[in-house]
Parts: sequence; C-alpha cells; structure tokens
Amino acid sequence: MTTDTGMVNAFVEGRADLDPATGEMISRRKDLLGPAYRLFYERPLHLVRGEGVWLYDPEGTGYLDAYNNVTSIGHCHPRVVEAIARQAGILATNTRYMHGAILDYAERLLATMPDALGHMMFTCTGSDANDLAVRIAQSFTGGKGIVVTETAYHGITQAVSEFSPSLGENVDLGAHVRTVPAPDSYRVTEGLAESFGASVAAAFADLKRHGIKPALFICDGIFASDGVFGDPAGFLKPAVEAARAAGALYIADEVQSGFGRTGDAMWGFQRHGVIPDLVTMGKPMGNGFPVAGVAVRPEVVEEFGRKARYFNTFGGNAVAIAAATAVLDVIEDEGLVENARVMGDYLRDGFRDLQTRYPAIGDVRGAGLFIGVEMVSDAAAKTPDAAAATAIVNGMRDENVLISGCAKAANVLKIRPPLVFKKSDADHFIAALSRVLARLS
Amino acid sequence: MTTDTGMVNAFVEGRADLDPATGEMISRRKDLLGPAYRLFYERPLHLVRGEGVWLYDPEGTGYLDAYNNVTSIGHCHPRVVEAIARQAGILATNTRYMHGAILDYAERLLATMPDALGHMMFTCTGSDANDLAVRIAQSFTGGKGIVVTETAYHGITQAVSEFSPSLGENVDLGAHVRTVPAPDSYRVTEGLAESFGASVAAAFADLKRHGIKPALFICDGIFASDGVFGDPAGFLKPAVEAARAAGALYIADEVQSGFGRTGDAMWGFQRHGVIPDLVTMGKPMGNGFPVAGVAVRPEVVEEFGRKARYFNTFGGNAVAIAAATAVLDVIEDEGLVENARVMGDYLRDGFRDLQTRYPAIGDVRGAGLFIGVEMVSDAAAKTPDAAAATAIVNGMRDENVLISGCAKAANVLKIRPPLVFKKSDADHFIAALSRVLARLS
Repeated sequence: MTTDTGMVNAFVEGRADLDPATGEMISRRKDLLGPAYRLFYERPLHLVRGEGVWLYDPEGTGYLDAYNNVTSIGHCHPRVVEAIARQAGILATNTRYMHGAILDYAERLLATMPDALGHMMFTCTGSDANDLAVRIAQSFTGGKGIVVTETAYHGITQAVSEFSPSLGENVDLGAHVRTVPAPDSYRVTEGLAESFGASVAAAFADLKRHGIKPALFICDGIFASDGVFGDPAGFLKPAVEAARAAGALYIADEVQSGFGRTGDAMWGFQRHGVIPDLVTMGKPMGNGFPVAGVAVRPEVVEEFGRKARYFNTFGGNAVAIAAATAVLDVIEDEGLVENARVMGDYLRDGFRDLQTRYPAIGDVRGAGLFIGVEMVSDAAAKTPDAAAATAIVNGMRDENVLISGCAKAANVLKIRPPLVFKKSDADHFIAALSRVLARLS
Repeated sequence: MTTDTGMVNAFVEGRADLDPATGEMISRRKDLLGPAYRLFYERPLHLVRGEGVWLYDPEGTGYLDAYNNVTSIGHCHPRVVEAIARQAGILATNTRYMHGAILDYAERLLATMPDALGHMMFTCTGSDANDLAVRIAQSFTGGKGIVVTETAYHGITQAVSEFSPSLGENVDLGAHVRTVPAPDSYRVTEGLAESFGASVAAAFADLKRHGIKPALFICDGIFASDGVFGDPAGFLKPAVEAARAAGALYIADEVQSGFGRTGDAMWGFQRHGVIPDLVTMGKPMGNGFPVAGVAVRPEVVEEFGRKARYFNTFGGNAVAIAAATAVLDVIEDEGLVENARVMGDYLRDGFRDLQTRYPAIGDVRGAGLFIGVEMVSDAAAKTPDAAAATAIVNGMRDENVLISGCAKAANVLKIRPPLVFKKSDADHFIAALSRVLARLS
C-alpha cells in the first residue's frame, strides 16, 4: 500500500495500534524532524544494534535483515569498523591534498569494470553521484534530455528528483524527462529486449520532436524500484543502442545493484553485456560509511574537467576510502559475489516451491541477492495485488524478518539480504514466509 | 591567481618545479581521478597524518593548519574518533527506523538557534543541505527566483551550482538567478547595510520584471568566498527585509560560518540579529565525518513534507549523529566559541600590527576565527593585488603554514584556523606571515 507520496511500505498513522513507547517516539520525531520523514511498516521499528544479518530492538529482539542494501557485507562488519576507527584517528582531509589510498582504491575499483571506464570521482551519496554524472553527460552531449523507466528512483537532489518518478506524483518530473515502461519480464514474455529498446528510441524521438536534445538514458542494473527485472540477461542491449543512436549517453546506476549484489559479477550492467559511459555507485560501497562515486570514460569527462572543476568536501576523504577499501577486501576474501549467486538461487528455489502452493505468488525473479516476488490476485490475468504485498511485508515484520515492497503497482516484495546470508538464514526466511502465506491464505 | 575555472590557489602544472615523488603522484591522480580534480598550492601537499592543529607529510614535516574548516575542533579529535569507532561497531542504519540519538541531537542543535527554527533534517554534505533547502523554499513560495552575492559558493549539485558563481564563468548561472555585489565593508564605508539591502531589492525586482517569482535570498554568514565580510554587525537586516518584502525566504548558509567559527555565537547569522527561514550547515558538523543538515521553520516545510517525502540513505545515520554529538560536546566543554572570539581578535591585532609596516595589507577583517586579509597594490586606491595574495599563500606554505585565498579579485587571504588554536599557534602564524611579507617586500 502506498501513501499519498507514493512510498511503498510507509508507516501511516492510525492504521495499526502502537505500543506507547513507539507512539511517543513517533511523536517526538514529528516534533523534531518535521513532516517529510517517513518510517517503514505499520508498526515502525526502533533499532539499537546490528551484527551480521541481525538487527536488534531495545528489548533485545533480533530481526533477520533481508532488506538493507547498505550494510551489504553484514551490520558492523569488524574489518570495516576497524578500518574506520583506525583511519579516523590518523587523518581525514580532502582531495585538494594528495593521498595515496584514494589512488590505490580507484585503481582497484576501475579494474573491476570494463577498460573503457578510466576515471573515478568520489561523492558521499548515490544521489550526488547521479547528480554529477548527469552534469557530466549534459556537458558532453550539449543536450538536456533524459530517459528513465516509469518507476525509477535515482536520488533526491533537485536535479535528480526530476527524473525519479518513484518519488510520487507530487514531485514534478522535468520538462526534459521522458519515462518508458519498465522491462516487465513477467508480462512481456517475448521480445522484451526489442520492445524495451523501441520504447527508449521512441522516448528520445519525442524529446527531439520537442526540441530537447538527448543527453542520457539512465537505469539501474536490476530495475530495483520498478519491480526487480534481470531476465533475460542481455535485454538491455537494444535500449543502450537506441540511446547511443539518439546521441545520448548510457549511465549505469549501480547504487543498488553494484558491489556483487546480483551474483553474476561486481556490477549489474555486466549481466547484460553492455558497456556504460558512466557508472554511478553508492549505498554498500562503505557498508554504512557515506561514500559514493562515479566511474567515467575519460573522453566523456575531458571537457567538463577542464572547464568545471569538481570538489566534494567529504567525497573520497581518507576515512571514506579506508571503509570502502575494507569492503572490497571482504567481498573478495569472503567470496561474496559467488555467495550472492548461490544464496540468491537457493532463495528463489524456495520461493518457487512456495509458489506451487500459493498462486498469489505470480512471479519469482531477480539476480543474486536482489529478489522480487510479485503478488497477484489472479495468476492467469497477472493482476497486481498491492494489499497482499503489504500484508506480507508487515506479516514478515511480525515474524521478525525485514523486507519491503516496490513496483509501480506496489505489489512486489523487495528482498535484499546481506551478501553474507547463509543457508540457515535462507531457511529461516523461507520458513517465516511460509508461515505468513499460510496465515494470509 | 585563479585558473581558467576561477579557483583561487589552484595548482597549475608547470608553474613551479616539483620533486619527483610529487610529480609522479600528480600524474597518477590525473590517470585515475581524471581532469576535474584540483590541488592546492604551486607545490601541492601530500598529507598522511593530522593531530590537533597540525598536519604531516610523509617525511614527518608538520604544517600548521590555519585553513581547514572541516576539522574545526582539531584533526582527529580523540572524542570524535572514539564516538565514531564505538557507534560504527553498534549500528549504522537509516531514518526509516527509529533511533533515539538523532532526536536528542536535533533537540540540542535546535536549542542553539532562534525558537522559530523548529525542525532539523539531515543530509551528508553542505551541498545537499542547500539543495534540499532550495527545494523546500521553492515549494513553499511557489517561485524559483534566487538572489546570491556575486562570488558566492553554496555547493556542487546541479541545482546549487547554478547559484554558486564562484565555480567560475564556465558553470552557467541559472536563468532564475541574480547576483548582487558583496557587502564590501572595505570600499563601502558608509551605508553598507542600506546599499546591500537596496541591491537585493533591485535583484528581486529584476526577477519579477522577467516573470520569475522570487523564492529565496541565500548568503553565508561571513561571505566566505566573496572576501570575508562581517562588519558592521547587523548589516544583513535590510537585505533580509528586502527579500521578505519580495515574497522570498531567507536561507542562512552556515556550512562555513556555523558551529562557533565566528566567535560571537554558534551561527554566523546571529551576528546580524536576523532570523532565517532555513539554516543549512555541514563541514565542521562531524569534524570530518560526512554529516550536514537543514534547520527549518515548521510552517515552511509543512506542505513540502506532506507532499514530497525526504529520505537520505546516510543522512543522520547513527554514526553520523554520534560524531556530530561528540563535536557539540567538545565545542561546549572546551569553550571553543569563546576561544574563536579571543584568538580571532588576537590574530587580527597581529595582522593590523603588520599592516602598519606593510601597506600591501589593505584591510584586516572577519569575525572569530574566520579572517580575511585583503592585499592591495595601492592602499589609497584600494587596488586588488591577486599576485601578492598568491605569493603569500605559497610563501606561507613554504613556511609550513596552511592558508588559502578568496574574493572576486582573488586578492584576499582566507585564514580559518581550527577553533582550538592557541596563543602559541597564533604567534607561530604571525611570525611566519611576518617573514613572508619581509621576503616579498
């Protein structure tokens, strides 16, 4: 169920009875933080501690975290905590002085990408990364026009909110923005790649018809808020070709799908065999420490760099780089990309097993540990059922398991366990989901 | 001396001989980070460690830091380091779950401001804070028009760069932006408040004449990049009144002047006896940990909050709040606002003493530990001398003392020591400046 701002799984006052402590804290939040903040769940959570795949409330109740995409290598991973603590005690300046660690990290990160992406720039948040990527793309192309999917989320700065339709109907899209339907592999069972590519081509043609020169096509590597679409692998190719044919660049937003999440590779776009002009990243990059960035083809940023310097006070400071370096170490040393692939498949198998008993599960999909489970009221007609999804998200919360929802129709379960999810965690999850489905049937 | 991007004190290749290690690191930076990054000084610095008011290079040479406005309570302050290390090991989630520390911190921070400012919202950077403040102000007023000073810097997002003229002539100002001359207390010796107010009124009138509805007047509390202007206290009043008369809001950008820097109070605007509609803050808020925010009048954010939810993944996470809380503790416990006032006056007295011997020092000004020293080639005509300022900034670097420059004419020394500067540090600074001036005379 969405609120007036279109947010899936938002707490809405009065919908459920709250214990007095929760009610009091919500009221204090409203007084101090104001009306723009939202909470998750019908009964919001107060969390005080995290460790590995678990989060804890003040009573010590543990919640299995199968949602938070930032603390991707596990809450409070000791190697990241140690790296932050050590570097915070040594130095935290900025990129107007030279420091070796940022160069070593950039080199290592760029080595995980196609050779074409030759430079790394650092910001603090994924929103900033997309904001910068768009500035660079618009400068390079001399155009403004942007094409995105219709329930995309790319961030919260003023410029980026103008091409983040999932922020809700009250946040205006820019006049230079066109949306295309998401690549819905559940409903479009043939020619998905071609039809998605054709939509992108048509959107750019429409921009041109309005005198708006194309600048960029941006999508995230797993269509996270559109409903989680990853199959068939390779379906992005015609869309990227259509963008380039229109004179636009392709920005791969890897803020959600990056750093091994999709299980195939470090980056979601690699699943599709395409090579972006710019790649943006953030959330799990520092496992909770604010660090984000943009990888870019040198020829794309050349003129921008000569004319418009870039400086981000905290972006790429020594502590951020220490945290990000520790995250890369852990992903490699603990074999987390492979684990995301194996555990993702294991979870999807479990969900498909449940699907045989519960026809309300219309589709099970995703890549690695980014999983979408689409709820429908009529399996044959594939009718979206937002109420069922909301009931399951809140039912899982009652089982002390954390997930959320997504998609235009708000009917898709968004399941994103930490990459360190083990088989026992997956079994715990599937058992809880099984109980919730049984209760709701 | 500015570069083609208008940056004061930017490193320009080929202007000075570099040692091989520096040359090699600069070349590696270019390869990996690309062309948009800039370094300080004719001979850039490689820093590896910081402690209190000192920064150190790999050879162990110490540099007295009289410039960095982020590590405002001293590099690697043990109480902040400890707070970050502790909280990073406990929990780092986001504001869609409840957490007590963010509420305690918001309450405490709002208590340092006029009562009218009732809500706190959290971002990661000052740019994000200004970006959000402008979204809120434009939503509330229904207008777009922005008035800023002609060498203002407010940040680097696409929307904010459009009203940050100090980014240089290659970064276009928005069609909805008008600039006014800075309140130059050195050249306008009478009626400064009135003339500045009249400029703001005229700029809003011009916006209206072009059919652009006024939204906001934004200035930082010390006119940091305009050349550091703080006197006469109270001069902002007519400008704020002019903005309100035009139907615009007043945003106090305290990213640089906040958290005790100006020595009068916690916030730069308090020097002028004005009450903002929104206050933005950042840089020193977490002493290097990325945390920033917006304080806002409840009535201004009410509709925005109902219609357009705000979420910032890292903004106000538990670790950011722990760092920010420790910073507030230190500012209070170590009496740093008072120290900024006393040490700022002491330094200015020292500079005025030098001024009696060196007429190239045209003006000494500022508030607390935000100090501007204006260099001129002709004291009577007050002719800006950018070359002198550049020579002094680099001469001080050769004395292992760090400052930089600012102002439209790039002729003002920007001096911003940590708030923990002691008398011995100030004496060290004045002695170094005296030697540099003697060498250059």
